Amino acid sequence: MSVTAAQGFVAGGMACGIKENGAPDLAIVATIDGNAVAAAGTFTTNLCQAAPVQISREHLADGKAAAIVLNSGNANAATGEPGRQHARAMCSLTALGLGIEPTNVLVCSTGLIGIPMPFQGIEAGIPQLTAKLGATDQDGIDAATAILTTDTVKKEAVATAIIGGITITIGAMAKGAAMLSPAMATMLCAITTDCAIDQPVLHQALAAAVDETFDCMDVDGARSTNDTVLVLANGAASNNIIAAPDGDDYHHFVAALTTVCGSIAEQMARDAEGATKFARVIVQGARSKGDAKLAARGITKSQLVQCSLYGGDPYWGRIISECGASGAYFDPEAVSISYQGITNCRNGIPAIHDTAKLMELMQQRDIEIVVDLGTGGHGNHTMLTTDLAPGYIAENMRTS
Amino acid sequence: MSVTAAQGFVAGGMACGIKENGAPDLAIVATIDGNAVAAAGTFTTNLCQAAPVQISREHLADGKAAAIVLNSGNANAATGEPGRQHARAMCSLTALGLGIEPTNVLVCSTGLIGIPMPFQGIEAGIPQLTAKLGATDQDGIDAATAILTTDTVKKEAVATAIIGGITITIGAMAKGAAMLSPAMATMLCAITTDCAIDQPVLHQALAAAVDETFDCMDVDGARSTNDTVLVLANGAASNNIIAAPDGDDYHHFVAALTTVCGSIAEQMARDAEGATKFARVIVQGARSKGDAKLAARGITKSQLVQCSLYGGDPYWGRIISECGASGAYFDPEAVSISYQGITNCRNGIPAIHDTAKLMELMQQRDIEIVVDLGTGGHGNHTMLTTDLAPGYIAENMRTS
Repeated sequence: MSVTAAQGFVAGGMACGIKENGAPDLAIVATIDGNAVAAAGTFTTNLCQAAPVQISREHLADGKAAAIVLNSGNANAATGEPGRQHARAMCSLTALGLGIEPTNVLVCSTGLIGIPMPFQGIEAGIPQLTAKLGATDQDGIDAATAILTTDTVKKEAVATAIIGGITITIGAMAKGAAMLSPAMATMLCAITTDCAIDQPVLHQALAAAVDETFDCMDVDGARSTNDTVLVLANGAASNNIIAAPDGDDYHHFVAALTTVCGSIAEQMARDAEGATKFARVIVQGARSKGDAKLAARGITKSQLVQCSLYGGDPYWGRIISECGASGAYFDPEAVSISYQGITNCRNGIPAIHDTAKLMELMQQRDIEIVVDLGTGGHGNHTMLTTDLAPGYIAENMRTS
Repeated sequence: MSVTAAQGFVAGGMACGIKENGAPDLAIVATIDGNAVAAAGTFTTNLCQAAPVQISREHLADGKAAAIVLNSGNANAATGEPGRQHARAMCSLTALGLGIEPTNVLVCSTGLIGIPMPFQGIEAGIPQLTAKLGATDQDGIDAATAILTTDTVKKEAVATAIIGGITITIGAMAKGAAMLSPAMATMLCAITTDCAIDQPVLHQALAAAVDETFDCMDVDGARSTNDTVLVLANGAASNNIIAAPDGDDYHHFVAALTTVCGSIAEQMARDAEGATKFARVIVQGARSKGDAKLAARGITKSQLVQCSLYGGDPYWGRIISECGASGAYFDPEAVSISYQGITNCRNGIPAIHDTAKLMELMQQRDIEIVVDLGTGGHGNHTMLTTDLAPGYIAENMRTS
């Protein structure tokens, strides 16, 4: 259940030969009737934007789209003008197969950077795939499977909301297992919903959901050239259209969208390359939300904190040091830190605690670190991260 | 040859029992006559400053010092008021042994954070050490050895300059093998010189040298609670005093000081925990020095670039992606990248090159990456970094 969960969307996936091992590498998501519907996207802030990002931005300028074509196995990044021609051709071929306009097709690629796209397989594959899109769960699964790279599991999420008495559905599929960083993660995510919502409002809702989810995760601080989150809203649920970014309907929609994106974000962190631990870092008691974010991001971007997580070592000295380097303001001698609910630092110095119990709890896969900056303020922020394990190095040391 | 290379300084090192394995862990550097001389320091910008940093800042307020006492095996950080009392006591004991004022003693500690200082050994050790300081090479070596933590080799450097016809000498010892980051590295460095130089000028010279050396190195982006670089200048060379931060004498002094700091910085990067590669990243053709710094720092802080170095993989896609995420401005399709003198990216896309030859050159320990941002500007900046190897994780996964 993912991008085919909402009414009125079809999807599919297949292997077209981009990946040398023959794994699925091509996916399409489309409106069932080919109509262009409200669409919104958020993209990498990297100055080096992959060709598909450049083309999707162009095609999204009118706020409408009817389909998304995605490939894994090659990022089509740092590929120059030939890369843009390939990205445009992916849109044209998809449009041809579906009987729609090329400018209503968005395109995403993920894989290695700086390798010319092997286009023969794509050229043959897209017509085959457009002919066999479907609305079943399996079609959604096929699409979700075809966008994976180093991911070990597919990522899907579905949520519903009641808008004016009518149930709307939001479904998503995504890839992402490394280069996960706030602003924003190295990932592709395609979201569909049958909610009726004006395009500018959809865009605002997406930005709000991304801010609370994908931007609250840091595995290795990397931002890539291809990061893209797209949402298509076809209005098939026939709810009263959400026309403004306020009111109950809007907030219910944002809540459901945030649930979907939050689930995907957590799935990505849990599947992070080589990771053996999943950690939630909660900073509270900061002067402001901004300070809490600085401290939480400082902690989660720390390789040393990540190494300690790998070792199951509740070494709070690195946590307080990262807070101090983060730019957040606080009194180091008012800070308390706990791991797994056990406080081992109080007022900035070691706190007596049950060390045997704590070491036992540190063996769990899920680790919760709570840092109270002790300023008396109410600023708080939560970030997700993982440990840094040898498997991460093994995964990333060579491209082939 | 290190802190005893310049005339008029004594030093020594010993094991006092802070390290459980009995390795040397206590060092002192002092003026031979106990006179307080021109002194300057740069310290961590971390908000969480270790007790010795707090006390050294106090004692350096008058710009004079006669001695530095240093210990390894415990950082005396996040130790609250008891930690400050211990740092003050280290100064008092040193002063007592040398017959000088406690406020003329500076103090440095390095080791684990958040562990109360085991003070008995220090209390017994300092009087023994002050009684046996000497000016021989071996005394300098003993001091340089006693400040090491995870370092596998001691770090020393010496340079000379001719100031008004007279040769002055600068010597330094340092520790640092991880948590190396610009602004500034996690390290202790003690420098002595017999040059006659006014204190404000000495401070400015130190800042200039640090900016060009320790701030141009990134191993893991970490800034600790204890980072300190100190310099004592006793004037024993009897040169015409350098009284202003300009003119040939000043520039010769800065050049020699930069040589010393640069050598120490390179020694630290070469000894980085677990590292198997040493890399020099040269960014040129940027619009400005600032943009070149942004790009160079973006590259060297990248775990993924470091993983590729470990694998000996000249994956320029990650380099261009990090430049794009760095905030530097350039046209991605004007960028050229070379490894070991072989250009494998030109105008932002793959360049035909001798891949077999390049893969062979990537087996070397020393790697040079040159990135030309192609803006037509003359901004350039060089940073040092290392690979990210499994040994780094092994070293940092547990504190004990």
